[in-house]
This record gives sequence, structure tokens and C-alpha cells, in this order.
Amino acid sequence: MKPIVEIAKTAGIEEQDLELYGKFKAKLSDELWEKVKDRPDGKLILVTAMNPNPAGAGKTLTTIGLSQSLNALGKKTIAALREPSLGPCMGIKGGATGSGQAQILPADEINLHFTGDIHAITSAHNLLAAMIDNHIFQGNPRRLNPKKIVWKRAMDMNDRALRNIVVGLGDGNGMSREDGFMITTASEIMAILCLSENLSDLRERLNNIIIGYDFDDVPVRANEIHAVEAMCVLLKEAIKPNLVQTIEGTPVLIHGGPFANIAHGCSSVIGTKTALKLADYVVTEAGFGADLGAEKFFDIKCRKAGLTPAAAVVVITVRALKYNGGVKVADLAVENLEALERGFANVRRHIENLQKFGVPAVVAINHFTTDTQEEVDAVIALCQQLGAEAALSYVWAEGSKGGIELAEKVARAAEKPSTFRFLYEEDLSIQQKMETVVKEIYRGSGVVFSPSALKTIQKIEEMGLSHLPVCMAKTPYSFTDRADILGAPTDFTISVSEVRVSAGAGFIVALTGSLVTMPGLPRKPAAESLYVDGDGHIVGLS
Amino acid sequence: MKPIVEIAKTAGIEEQDLELYGKFKAKLSDELWEKVKDRPDGKLILVTAMNPNPAGAGKTLTTIGLSQSLNALGKKTIAALREPSLGPCMGIKGGATGSGQAQILPADEINLHFTGDIHAITSAHNLLAAMIDNHIFQGNPRRLNPKKIVWKRAMDMNDRALRNIVVGLGDGNGMSREDGFMITTASEIMAILCLSENLSDLRERLNNIIIGYDFDDVPVRANEIHAVEAMCVLLKEAIKPNLVQTIEGTPVLIHGGPFANIAHGCSSVIGTKTALKLADYVVTEAGFGADLGAEKFFDIKCRKAGLTPAAAVVVITVRALKYNGGVKVADLAVENLEALERGFANVRRHIENLQKFGVPAVVAINHFTTDTQEEVDAVIALCQQLGAEAALSYVWAEGSKGGIELAEKVARAAEKPSTFRFLYEEDLSIQQKMETVVKEIYRGSGVVFSPSALKTIQKIEEMGLSHLPVCMAKTPYSFTDRADILGAPTDFTISVSEVRVSAGAGFIVALTGSLVTMPGLPRKPAAESLYVDGDGHIVGLS
Repeated sequence: MKPIVEIAKTAGIEEQDLELYGKFKAKLSDELWEKVKDRPDGKLILVTAMNPNPAGAGKTLTTIGLSQSLNALGKKTIAALREPSLGPCMGIKGGATGSGQAQILPADEINLHFTGDIHAITSAHNLLAAMIDNHIFQGNPRRLNPKKIVWKRAMDMNDRALRNIVVGLGDGNGMSREDGFMITTASEIMAILCLSENLSDLRERLNNIIIGYDFDDVPVRANEIHAVEAMCVLLKEAIKPNLVQTIEGTPVLIHGGPFANIAHGCSSVIGTKTALKLADYVVTEAGFGADLGAEKFFDIKCRKAGLTPAAAVVVITVRALKYNGGVKVADLAVENLEALERGFANVRRHIENLQKFGVPAVVAINHFTTDTQEEVDAVIALCQQLGAEAALSYVWAEGSKGGIELAEKVARAAEKPSTFRFLYEEDLSIQQKMETVVKEIYRGSGVVFSPSALKTIQKIEEMGLSHLPVCMAKTPYSFTDRADILGAPTDFTISVSEVRVSAGAGFIVALTGSLVTMPGLPRKPAAESLYVDGDGHIVGLS
Repeated sequence: MKPIVEIAKTAGIEEQDLELYGKFKAKLSDELWEKVKDRPDGKLILVTAMNPNPAGAGKTLTTIGLSQSLNALGKKTIAALREPSLGPCMGIKGGATGSGQAQILPADEINLHFTGDIHAITSAHNLLAAMIDNHIFQGNPRRLNPKKIVWKRAMDMNDRALRNIVVGLGDGNGMSREDGFMITTASEIMAILCLSENLSDLRERLNNIIIGYDFDDVPVRANEIHAVEAMCVLLKEAIKPNLVQTIEGTPVLIHGGPFANIAHGCSSVIGTKTALKLADYVVTEAGFGADLGAEKFFDIKCRKAGLTPAAAVVVITVRALKYNGGVKVADLAVENLEALERGFANVRRHIENLQKFGVPAVVAINHFTTDTQEEVDAVIALCQQLGAEAALSYVWAEGSKGGIELAEKVARAAEKPSTFRFLYEEDLSIQQKMETVVKEIYRGSGVVFSPSALKTIQKIEEMGLSHLPVCMAKTPYSFTDRADILGAPTDFTISVSEVRVSAGAGFIVALTGSLVTMPGLPRKPAAESLYVDGDGHIVGLS
């Protein structure tokens, strides 16, 4: 690792605009934005993927590797990524900072407490929760209906026992009521932090959070509980983007990490916009596959922040295609051109979808040693039939060198004049917006709304919030709302069981199927394999 | 503020032994201890106080001021203090970093997230809790009795609704059981971090935490849940002391802040020991008044860490003496020599108690403008009758200049050869140890143990843990277990309602009266008055 001060210099950031957190992490000062805001923007590249499956794609890896390869081509590039959540690191997945020759450093610190952003969000979230219960305890002047409080508590931990709880038991401990914890990344505050342009915008959005309803069923907002200014105090540093580096010294702004189902799943607007002022190319990623992640990136983040994506990269693997084509995990190493072609139906649809947004798609085939030349040739040919460039990526093994062809194709695609457009206009009705996403992106025949979803939609319309974009919370594994239907299914409907409004973040969430906002730990948690070795190094995390 | 690198230099710490957190905060590297450990120790000065009351004493203020004054006298001095908890900052008290010309900087950051130590403890605490419930959920091989889990959850927030809760409700969310949250500073992990000598010691102590009992009523320890190594990973940075500065540039190591009732209430052993190697004088403080704070500092912290205090400072105010002598808060500005003398009975007992430990006591009269000369003279005379030096302290208004006389008297007291001794030996029975503290320090006639307390004591003896020192959890406002009995009462007994063992931290807690380990917010929380102003500065915190 190089000192972060040197990495900053390569990005044109002076030391006085850094707030150092150790030698290898820094936050960007508030003043930096004022200095760079009038510069022209670089090109924004979105990295997305086919529907995820157990064979793995390598989206974060490719994002990091591509940013290194673009730099190697002499194109000044910064990666803009999401912060990993600590909870899942203790569960199944280990870290979320790439691996091999395409990783971000210092990986362990980024995966754990990092610069404290997520801890600050947890604190702000729970301060609001404590002030809500205290408001009721102290006489409830706002006449909050304790049965209709929608603001839960948050913790950055995988802890299923906290999903559904009863609080306020015992004498002197306030009103007993049902409550629950979500993981911090599912907090609306995380979504708000990621969509805010600055501290005033953050304050405004926090003010608008609907925390519950009063006895007349009128929404009660966070500002009525007088918690928002203190929440801003707690979030004052968390709103500043964090600068780190890749293993090759490419600057990375890593900031914010909202859930990709209940929220939009993209890194912060502040981080992305700052990166666009500092670099010629900014490579960023969205959550899950392109049906969820890219759609929300375009229709929520780009719309709200006024961003214009220049190109999108769809990360696939030969293995994942074969899995999608019906091959079992144990057999993925065996060449199977038929399954490959069947599985490609999934990728085809994602490419077509990206074209609907007017964004040129480049396919990155994240290489595994078991891939055969015939398989790779077949994939490339299939992509070309769709007018999409494709390139093999060896960034895991070779770093920037392994992504030169990909970088060249991405850069070429990004040079074309933008034809970017949103999927829907905001003035459509809430139902129409959801139907548009389902028909155009998922290719379902329509949406079935539950009675309670329809009731909430009506309520949102009465609140005057129907102009907000929609945020679909759907299984990432399928275009449908059933995780086991792979490929490119047709003739299905999507069931919206529940609708929620995130009035602070500024979107309307449609829940399809059941949604868990607090993960659990598996039979053998990853935490059991973590340790600090005799030299003080963390083992088992990344 | 000077750059922390410069402050470090005055303390003989090289830049390579610092881990910077911004320009004004740093953690000390693990390597520093290895470099300095063979040096002779400086003199350790404990700052304690009379029983706290609404008139206020100024213990932290005096600790900071005294360290500045000693430096002004040319004596190389470092202050070793506790980290403020974020929760109470949102409740009543505002910050905990001193004020006026005797404060620690950057105050706002120290009072909020600081370097993330308390957040890390929260994470480690809740990881263990999540792994306990997951252990049960995944088949419960260790046969944990869900009704006898004593490890609760933790949050650094004042939130009474979380005191008593039921977790695990709903299908698929594990075993429903009663649980609760404590504020993070009350976590045994905080006590452990503060008593640990290094990471191996921390690991050993975490292993020994009793998290509950199995169906045969055998204690189950944290190591049996396989959580401890991951907890060490989470606490790896938190165990390093934090360096900041006073408003006059005196170096301050601020590290750890355990509850002063359920735990021992002192800053970390690592911080204190490091400071003793770097300075000629180290000024530290203990929780509450001397009956609780000083006793635990001597009998728990000094015993466990092998520290020898050279002198103790008892902080008092004329106002607090008068309150203790029966004057109402509204009348404290009026001269009242009789009430003053009555109230002095409280201070007399604390001075005598310190003398029982063989520690010379110096009284610091924290000056208020309403104090009359007659009152001050009377207090000094009363102290001299006890053989205790006394000095007025003006450190709030004047910084180091206002504490020169105090510093001179403290330095002189600390020069005498130590006659320090513990109050009791560890081989006494648990009951005898508690009785010794009650009779010798509180001056009660004896202890009344509840049947359940006696049962637990027997259990602790069977576990082979009766050699541990005792940690009394008592109201800080009185020598008795009733908050409203001021002065120097006699003829009372102390009721021990419950006994707990903190097998990791290494002490046995005696609860007298009810104990709340999760504070609530008041009618108008301090959080309502906090905000970030137009220049990005926090207002209302310190």
C-alpha cells in the first residue's frame, strides 16, 4: 500500500482536503467539493451482472479490476464503491473488497469498522428510535399511535432473534409494543445518506422520514420528534466519502452501502459526483443483477442526482451461465455448450434491458480456469449477435493486465454520445410505474396488488408523494418473484404484497414476496473462523 | 489545537508509533509498549471526590486542570482519562471532556464517535449475543438453558424501552425468551478491555465470560460459543489507547469508560501503564465519590495491574459541602458556615478512608465565584485538622495558572515513600470482603444478604472464583444504599440484593438496591438542543 496522501495526489486531491484515518484511509473534506464542483464530469461506467447464482459472477472484483485496467490504459479512473456491512462478514460471506489482484486495501479494516460510517448510521437510527419511545413515555404530545410506529431499531449484525421483539416490558420502561431490529444497511438513513447531495440535503431528507402515524392516522415525521438535528450531528462525518486504494494504487471512493432490495443498493451520490469531478472515468457498481440493481441505479440514483451513465458492464461467468442453463454446481467444471446457450437467455434479456435505457452494454466474462475455449467463443458470439461487445477478464489473476481488452471496449462504448433515458416518467401513477418495471424489465405480464398494497398506494397518493420513483424489493435470483425460476421466463405475474414509502430517501418500496431486513447467522458462522494471529494480523476475513 | 504528532513528540512518542485519526487524534501502536516497558514508572495521582450531589464537584475538570498545572511546574505530566459514552450525551449531561480552560480537545469528536472504541465494544458484545441465540437455533449442542442466559445485548444509547424485551418472536426467528439491552459502557467487555494488559490478556478474559448456564446449571463460557476470536478481531484497534490534548497542549490518554457501579469505573490499564512510562506524573480519575470510585480503583484496578498510587486528590466545592449540610440548591450562593461544616463530615470520612489505603490525600476546592473567603478558610482549616493539605483550584477560569498551588501540594504529597495497601486480602471469603468494604469505607454496621445473593455466592465459591475482588454497585450519592442520606451516616446496614460474577473482568458484583444498566432519556433530551451550524460546527455538546 502507498500512503493515502500519495494516492490522493494522483487524484488531484491536496493533503489539506484529507482527513486521515491512519496512513491508508482518509475522508474527503467538505471544502474539496467547493473546489472541484465546476469542473466537467468524467464518464460514468456502471458495473452490473446477470442474475446472481451459486456459481458466482464477480461484480465487485470486475469493478475494481476494470478501474485498474482503465488506469493502465492511461485513462484517469476512480472506482466508486459501497461500504461492506460488518454483520454479513460474521455470517457467510467474508469480506466484500474483491480478491486476488483486484482488491481494495486495507481490506480488513474496510470490512470491519472502517471509518465508522455504518456505526454512525446505527447511532443516528437508534437515537431516533429512543426519542420516539421517549416521546410516548413523556406524555406523547404528538399523539403517536404506539401500534403504528414504523420506525424500527437497527444493528450492524446478523441476528435473527432481533427480527421480531417486544420492547418496553416492566415497570417504568415505557409502553410495551411490538418492534424489531433491521440490519443497519437496511435503514432508511443509509439510503438517505447515499442519496444526499450534502448536509443540508441530508437534514431535509431526515426531516421527511415517516416514523409512524398518529391516532388520526396522519403520518408523523422525524422532525416532529425533534431528533433530526442531533442525527445530523451524529452523521456529520459519515457523510464524507472515504478514500482508499486498490492493490495497484487506483484511488477508490468507498461510501455508503444500502440494501439492494428495500433500498436502491448503490454507493453514495456524494462519492460518485466527487469522483466524476476528479477523474475521466468513474467505475461504480449496483446491487444484485441488472433487473434490480441497474434499474434502480438508473431510475432512482441517476434520476435523483442528475447523473448520465456512459456505459454498463454486465459481468457473467461461463460457470454461472451453465448453472442458469440447468447444470448442477458439482458439474460446472465440465464443458457444456448446450447448457451455456440455454443459460445465456438470462444475459440476453439483461443486455436488451440496458439497451432500453439507451446505455451501451459491454459483457465481461470473468474467467475461470475451467472455462474451455469453445465455451468462451460461444459466449462472445452470442453477445455479438445482440450488438454487445464482450471481453474475457482475468483481473483476479493478473490485475490491470488481465482487463485491458475489457477496458478498451468499455472506453470505446463510453465515447459514444449518450442516449440515456429513464424507463418511466415520474408523473405516471404508482401502479403504472411498478407495472412498467415488471413488463419492460422483468417481462412479466402484469402486477397483482394485495388489498393492503392498494390501500397504502392510495394513502401515498393522498400524502402527495405519488411522484416518487419506485424501488422494487424482489428476489435477485430470478426475473420473477420466485427464486427458483432461472433463465428468461415469460408468462408470469409479480405479486406486490406490501408497499412502503421511504419519504426521506424519496422512493416507494414494493415488496414482492417476503422480505427479511435482518439476516441470520448460518450453522457455522464465518465469525468462528476469524482470528488475530501472533503478528496482530486478522486471518479469515478477506 | 496543535497537531497530535507534536503533542506526541512532547510525550516522547515518535510519529511511527502513532496511528492517526485525523490531525488531532491518534492511537498508540502496539510496538510503543515494547519500546518503553522497561522504563521506570512515573507517579500515579488519583483524582476522586466527595459524594456527588446536584451542586457539582468538577472531578474531570480538576483532573485535566491539575495535569496542566503539573506541566506548568515543569513536571512532565500526562492525564489518563475515561472515554465518554455517546448515549448520555443525548440525555442530560452534554459532554464529558471538562470545560473552560481545563478541557480536552477535540471535545465534540471525543464525546461522539471518537476513534470508534465504544462502537467496537458494542459490535463485539452483540456478536456474542447473536452467536448465543444462533447456537440455540442451530440445535443447541452445548445444551444452553435459554431461561438462564445472562449475556444481554448492548447499545450506546439511553433507551429505556430496551431494558426488558422479548426476543425471537415469530416463525423462523429462534427461541423466544426474555432479554434486554444495557448501555455499552455497562458491558463486561468494557470492563475487560479496561483491565486487560494486552490482546492475549483480553482474549483470555473474553474466554472466561460466563454467558449463561446449561440444563445442568453448569456455567457456559464465551469460548464454548466460539465467538471469542472474532470478538478479538473486532476489538483489535479498540484496545489501543487514544492520544489527544488539553486546551494547553498537555497530552491526554483517553481510553475505556466502564460503568462505575456494575464495573470498576476507571480508564484502561493499558493507558495508565503506558502513561506511567512516558511521564513523571500521571493524573487519572475514578468514578463517582471516593467510597465507590477510589475503593475500586485501589482494590480492583491497582491490585490487578500492580499499580501503586502516590497520592489522591479529593475534589470538593463549597457549594457541594453546603448542599451536603442541608442547604437547598436555590440557596447555595449564600454564605453558610454552619451548613458548610456539617457538610464537611462527608469529606472528612473520604479523607480518612484514603488514609486507610495509605494514600496521602490532598483536597482540591474547585472555586466558584460565590464562595466567600470565610467559607474557603473554614474548609482549609477543617482539612488541616485531618492532616490533609487543601488548595483552591481556579483551573476552569485560569487553566494551569489556577492550579499551581494544588499541583505543588500534590507533587509534595506524591514525593513521600508509598505506604499503599489494599483494604482487604483476596483470600477472605466473598462475604467478608463485602463486609470489610461496608464497615471500613461506608461505616455501616454490616451487610444483609438476600437469599438469592447467598445462593449465588455459594455458586461462585463452587466455581472456584471466591478469590476475586468485590465490586460494589451502590448509589453514589450516599455512603448508605439510600440516595437521600447525605453527610456521614452511621448505624445502617447495606442490603445486597443480588450478586453477579464477572468472570472475564475478574470481579464479583454486589448489587445493593436496584440497578439500572440502561439509562432513559429525560423529558427534554439534550439531543433536542444539538445541531450543526452553518459552518459545520457542532453546537450544544460541550
